[in-house]
Amino acid sequence: MLAQQLSTVLPGGTVLTDPATLEGYLHDEAEWAPYEPPLAVVRPRSTAEVQAVVRFCLEHRVPLVPRGAGTGLSGGANATAGCVVVSMEGMREVVEINTAERLAVVQPGVVNDDLRAACAEHGLWYPPDPASAPWSTIGGNLATNAGGLCCVKYGVTGDYVLGMEVVTGRGDVVRLGRRTAKGVAGYDLCALLVGSEGTLGIVTEVTVRLRPQRQPERTIAGYFDSVVDAGRAVSLVAAAGVVPSALELVDRHCLEAVDAWKQMGLSVDANVVLLGRTDTPGAAGDSEAAEMMRCFEEGGASWAAQSSDQQEADALFAARRLAYPALERLGPVLTEDICVPVAMVPEMLTRIEKTASAHDTLIANIAHAGDGNLHPLLITPRGDAAARTRAQAAFEVIICDALDLGGTVTGEHGIGQLKRAGLGRELSAPVIEMHHAVKNALDPHGILNPGKAIPDRAAG
Amino acid sequence: MLAQQLSTVLPGGTVLTDPATLEGYLHDEAEWAPYEPPLAVVRPRSTAEVQAVVRFCLEHRVPLVPRGAGTGLSGGANATAGCVVVSMEGMREVVEINTAERLAVVQPGVVNDDLRAACAEHGLWYPPDPASAPWSTIGGNLATNAGGLCCVKYGVTGDYVLGMEVVTGRGDVVRLGRRTAKGVAGYDLCALLVGSEGTLGIVTEVTVRLRPQRQPERTIAGYFDSVVDAGRAVSLVAAAGVVPSALELVDRHCLEAVDAWKQMGLSVDANVVLLGRTDTPGAAGDSEAAEMMRCFEEGGASWAAQSSDQQEADALFAARRLAYPALERLGPVLTEDICVPVAMVPEMLTRIEKTASAHDTLIANIAHAGDGNLHPLLITPRGDAAARTRAQAAFEVIICDALDLGGTVTGEHGIGQLKRAGLGRELSAPVIEMHHAVKNALDPHGILNPGKAIPDRAAG
Repeated sequence: MLAQQLSTVLPGGTVLTDPATLEGYLHDEAEWAPYEPPLAVVRPRSTAEVQAVVRFCLEHRVPLVPRGAGTGLSGGANATAGCVVVSMEGMREVVEINTAERLAVVQPGVVNDDLRAACAEHGLWYPPDPASAPWSTIGGNLATNAGGLCCVKYGVTGDYVLGMEVVTGRGDVVRLGRRTAKGVAGYDLCALLVGSEGTLGIVTEVTVRLRPQRQPERTIAGYFDSVVDAGRAVSLVAAAGVVPSALELVDRHCLEAVDAWKQMGLSVDANVVLLGRTDTPGAAGDSEAAEMMRCFEEGGASWAAQSSDQQEADALFAARRLAYPALERLGPVLTEDICVPVAMVPEMLTRIEKTASAHDTLIANIAHAGDGNLHPLLITPRGDAAARTRAQAAFEVIICDALDLGGTVTGEHGIGQLKRAGLGRELSAPVIEMHHAVKNALDPHGILNPGKAIPDRAAG
Repeated sequence: MLAQQLSTVLPGGTVLTDPATLEGYLHDEAEWAPYEPPLAVVRPRSTAEVQAVVRFCLEHRVPLVPRGAGTGLSGGANATAGCVVVSMEGMREVVEINTAERLAVVQPGVVNDDLRAACAEHGLWYPPDPASAPWSTIGGNLATNAGGLCCVKYGVTGDYVLGMEVVTGRGDVVRLGRRTAKGVAGYDLCALLVGSEGTLGIVTEVTVRLRPQRQPERTIAGYFDSVVDAGRAVSLVAAAGVVPSALELVDRHCLEAVDAWKQMGLSVDANVVLLGRTDTPGAAGDSEAAEMMRCFEEGGASWAAQSSDQQEADALFAARRLAYPALERLGPVLTEDICVPVAMVPEMLTRIEKTASAHDTLIANIAHAGDGNLHPLLITPRGDAAARTRAQAAFEVIICDALDLGGTVTGEHGIGQLKRAGLGRELSAPVIEMHHAVKNALDPHGILNPGKAIPDRAAG
């Protein structure tokens, strides 16, 4: 048996095959995407062990599915029939934090919040902060080029990746990128690997750029009667030339779900809450905060204020982070992740409302509104097949609307499996061909997470 | 004749073949790199014309050399025997400046400073500022992933590229990237194209991200007796957690050359001048300026002061920008562009001094010191073949020293031809193979700027 053979090339306990264990590695948080039982789950503890797995899979032409914490939302880490799931959870060492060069070297299984905490001890800051930061890993963040709350000002995961160690589709261990602040030595293969969802290589170590610890943030909250008013406020902030350190939208459905779960006593006197933050110090920060408040009011806020209570502000942001798991308690959640030009946010939110009612589907909204990155969350009653079908239809309509408004099918969650068809619509046929050409160039035997991240070739 | 045939597929006046005209397109600023007479120079005025050239070259298997303003320093735009030089100078329209989305759409022949001026009229800022900004084009900046003075705080060209239109190696016109703030739809082919020196496609339009216009900068100047003292001050700034908006090093050779040329009356009471800037507003900026001055003094500055005279500060930065052309007046300049970890700047500068005296070569130094990006400038008397040979040997020693200290062979000028051997030393054999695999995937017939940007395959 193949799984038994695999066990012989790795240390005892690394290869797992008992069905109960495999159950936990079947899929990521995108349980709407398809998955199949894997051949085995492997938990390597070193680069050499990852290389041994890749070489074994190359020899036997077995597909590999790399996996971080499994918090992905597009099915990129879902198991495929007879694959080997390579869980990086055993490689979770922070190898180095270097204050002089302002960088960290970490293994892929390090949890985002753990890296952030380790950096903070050195007065440094690793900005990328996906809502999953307490659970998701740096490797998974890199594989999906994860965004987060602060990226409206500070950019996404890829903006912080300087270098990496990778096991390639040919079974080589290579170093890509650098440790220096700048560098243009050869093609930017690091950037190519970021966001490629494990289809071009398995990352075994990452060198990330850090920033000095920043100033505490000030929070401005605004209550709005409609998503459209809130969307208008967001456009006004952008037009005013303010770059907030976060600008989040949370609707009543989310706040109620969080409150029902955590009893945080959140005010829900509004249909939509906008949360703006600025970390600019001093008087410049004061004027940014005032300007943001003015935009909220001009956009039609029924109430807006700068939070003088840090606890209250933190509670609102905690609620934002908890929205997704809170809604999941109500039933399976199908998560959208479209991104549109900021000026199109009001129109897109209007269309989402129409789609919700046309498809009789409950759609809650959280959004990194300052980026135009919206997360409509489609919730269906458990076991209601008809509702599920309606939600899936609504999901596709939202994708089409985003493309129609000059947007993209995925702002930060990635393609995985859920967005492959949408990506096929977003890209032209020659660009899809370029994707396949690059994939074939770096994974000539097609063993790295096949069937994910890129669309099928155009017919004909 | 091929050139005549080429004329038939393009409008009159687009294809140039007279020897006097070709002379001006033989090489970029890296005249030390080899070049050969081209078949013709083409100056297309539209994407369709670029596509016609590429298709012609595909059909006849003629190599293409894309070219911006020809200010490159590595020979990436040098003509190769029988090639068609595609000069993008005729495509220089700023197509759109969008304040709501904070982006601009430009043709590749737009000069960097012209784009910056156009953005300023809308209260916006395009940060990448190579020293060649008054002459170099956005297309050339993109092809080399150009850096500049402010990238110690604001990043390089690639950090601002959102999307592009490209004529591919298969002769297709494609759009890569997006217009939204975020997006992870498919492989980051935009990032792959940035810095690829025209070897993976010819860029015909670029969408760049902009920032709000920033605050005026404050300048701190420090005089040092030695490059090593100045290097120590640079390391101290990094360790202090200050992120300056520029941190430039200029040595006496440069200041003297600029003064001899422009009679700017620059003080040269120092062997090395460090120029630090901060654009942080208000009290936070005050404390950054004070902290930088403290680091200069602790590093061993003989004199340091915050410039109260904006004109004086601007003159010092103008001198920095003029250093390269000023030195060229003394004789052919071979420009280095290594980047080392910031903590290694003093050691690297020490080694450069030793190399200069060991190879009896005048080496002037300018440096984006805050990034660890050093530009030793090797100057030889005109017509002195022996000096040229010594300079070339020194050039290679500096590359080896940079790699030895954990650095890279090119921080921002690119590989072109001058650094191909060095890149072969920097990259491992499997990574060189990855480069060739990607090149073959996107340019299967090898017509796009062959012999540039990537090293030869390892022997055996």
